[in-house]
Amino acid sequence: MKVCVVGCGAIGSLFAAHLAKLEDVEVWAFDVDRDHIDAINANGLRLSGESDVHSYPKATSNPSDIPACEFGIVATKSLHTRAAIESTASVFKDAAVCTVQNGVGNEEIIAEYVPRVIRGTTFPAGHVVEPGHVEQDTGGKTWLGPFEPKPATMAEIELLAERLTESGIETLAMEDSRGAQWTKLIFNAATNPIGALTGLPHGVACDQPAVRKVISGLVAEGVAVADAMGITLDSDPDKLVDHAREVAYHHKASMLQDALARRPTEVAALNGGIVKFGEQTGVPTPLNQAIWALIEGLEHSWTRDD
Amino acid sequence: MKVCVVGCGAIGSLFAAHLAKLEDVEVWAFDVDRDHIDAINANGLRLSGESDVHSYPKATSNPSDIPACEFGIVATKSLHTRAAIESTASVFKDAAVCTVQNGVGNEEIIAEYVPRVIRGTTFPAGHVVEPGHVEQDTGGKTWLGPFEPKPATMAEIELLAERLTESGIETLAMEDSRGAQWTKLIFNAATNPIGALTGLPHGVACDQPAVRKVISGLVAEGVAVADAMGITLDSDPDKLVDHAREVAYHHKASMLQDALARRPTEVAALNGGIVKFGEQTGVPTPLNQAIWALIEGLEHSWTRDD
Repeated sequence: MKVCVVGCGAIGSLFAAHLAKLEDVEVWAFDVDRDHIDAINANGLRLSGESDVHSYPKATSNPSDIPACEFGIVATKSLHTRAAIESTASVFKDAAVCTVQNGVGNEEIIAEYVPRVIRGTTFPAGHVVEPGHVEQDTGGKTWLGPFEPKPATMAEIELLAERLTESGIETLAMEDSRGAQWTKLIFNAATNPIGALTGLPHGVACDQPAVRKVISGLVAEGVAVADAMGITLDSDPDKLVDHAREVAYHHKASMLQDALARRPTEVAALNGGIVKFGEQTGVPTPLNQAIWALIEGLEHSWTRDD
Repeated sequence: MKVCVVGCGAIGSLFAAHLAKLEDVEVWAFDVDRDHIDAINANGLRLSGESDVHSYPKATSNPSDIPACEFGIVATKSLHTRAAIESTASVFKDAAVCTVQNGVGNEEIIAEYVPRVIRGTTFPAGHVVEPGHVEQDTGGKTWLGPFEPKPATMAEIELLAERLTESGIETLAMEDSRGAQWTKLIFNAATNPIGALTGLPHGVACDQPAVRKVISGLVAEGVAVADAMGITLDSDPDKLVDHAREVAYHHKASMLQDALARRPTEVAALNGGIVKFGEQTGVPTPLNQAIWALIEGLEHSWTRDD
């Protein structure tokens, strides 16, 4: 079995390193970061923290190196989805391609380039320590299900979930994985931009009553959109906010890290996704719309030359 | 006639310097900034830019230096109103005290300490160049009217307006000055925090369609509150936003300047004021509430030690 991981940053590396432990799986790691690719080819890929793995996926920045694969796992930042799948599409001519990215809207883009798509959501998080070495910060499950308009078969989804679980990434195959995806989406959309706009770590933001109220307002809009779409959430995102306050008080949301580094954020796939599906279902999302606009304004301030 | 200007930053200096040109007006400038006070006493107070004035108000940081005055003009940042009027109250035992500060809620605080209060709004803006020297950036009118619960007499208000106009600050005395105050309040509350959160100058923010929509949303809430209070606005604040885009495209809102310098902002008197009066009149103001919370969260990130 051949699997290509597209985008081999922190999350992609978790998947590539685990899968490469399996003897009968050939894993290709694709990324544009040459240093990381060269380090993997020279010394293998190492995971520390929540995982302790050292394995040897094949790594490349050149899609034409990669043979036809049965599976793809897209793990780029959501704003690079199109570029990444466009350049690797030839690898996936008869493949089922899964996204484990943040937000919504990635499946729709991937489906333009490949025959069958898997809607995935993953909770583990980590960061690149140095080329070839990723630290896994948090554990958690992964959920896979068909992307309804252009679905992978349940047999494919179950096979991928089995192999991932076998490799150490606990993965559930489901007929409908939208509940998991939207739970994480709503949580991220309600917390990430608040961190980016205020500069506050998650727990500190939660302890400001007025800020906590904004978070709940963002959650409520997301839940209303999910309801209108007929999606049953896995759990109450507002309770996840409190839970994260307990277990990750000092955590700086990834969007705050993006803001501090003046990198483009994933806001369009998070709050932008809630706004878009809100429009489609007639659910008003004024707070998500405002937050989306403010983050995009902030991003503009980093690059404008007027 | 004796007048004490309380808070002699950019705005206070405009009033003190102009009034001190009048031969029969004794002007006292009170401020806690010793360098500015010492410079005024040594070399007088100089205005450049839109005004060209060099005059000699008496300046002090010690309220007990100041004789009883007929008029007070409070011009501190709104978050220093209470401290400023508390320390100078003895000067105003039989005075009419006017605020020319940003936002709403300052009159209520002043009224706790002095017998008669004037509701004032002023459009000119400026900045301190160096101690003793203020540059006036923009011109504009000043509006004075009674603060309804503890009003100055119309005779007093007209007298102060006359002397101000005579000194070069065009001032209108009105039976109801709330329209002017709320027009400026709504404009400031819709534009200042947007600059602070996005880092964008006013015109650049306006040219981001999604950001412009947030500004209009904030304006709409403020207009609804003013309507519910029976206030007739002087002009449409949303049109003022477009006008400011024309005349002050590259202007960084004062709250953005505060944010860049990590100074406490006036958000509580701006968006906080709209929220407070919205609660009193039963008008929902979710956007102003969210923006207020975000700015206070941002301020917290500058000072927290957790």
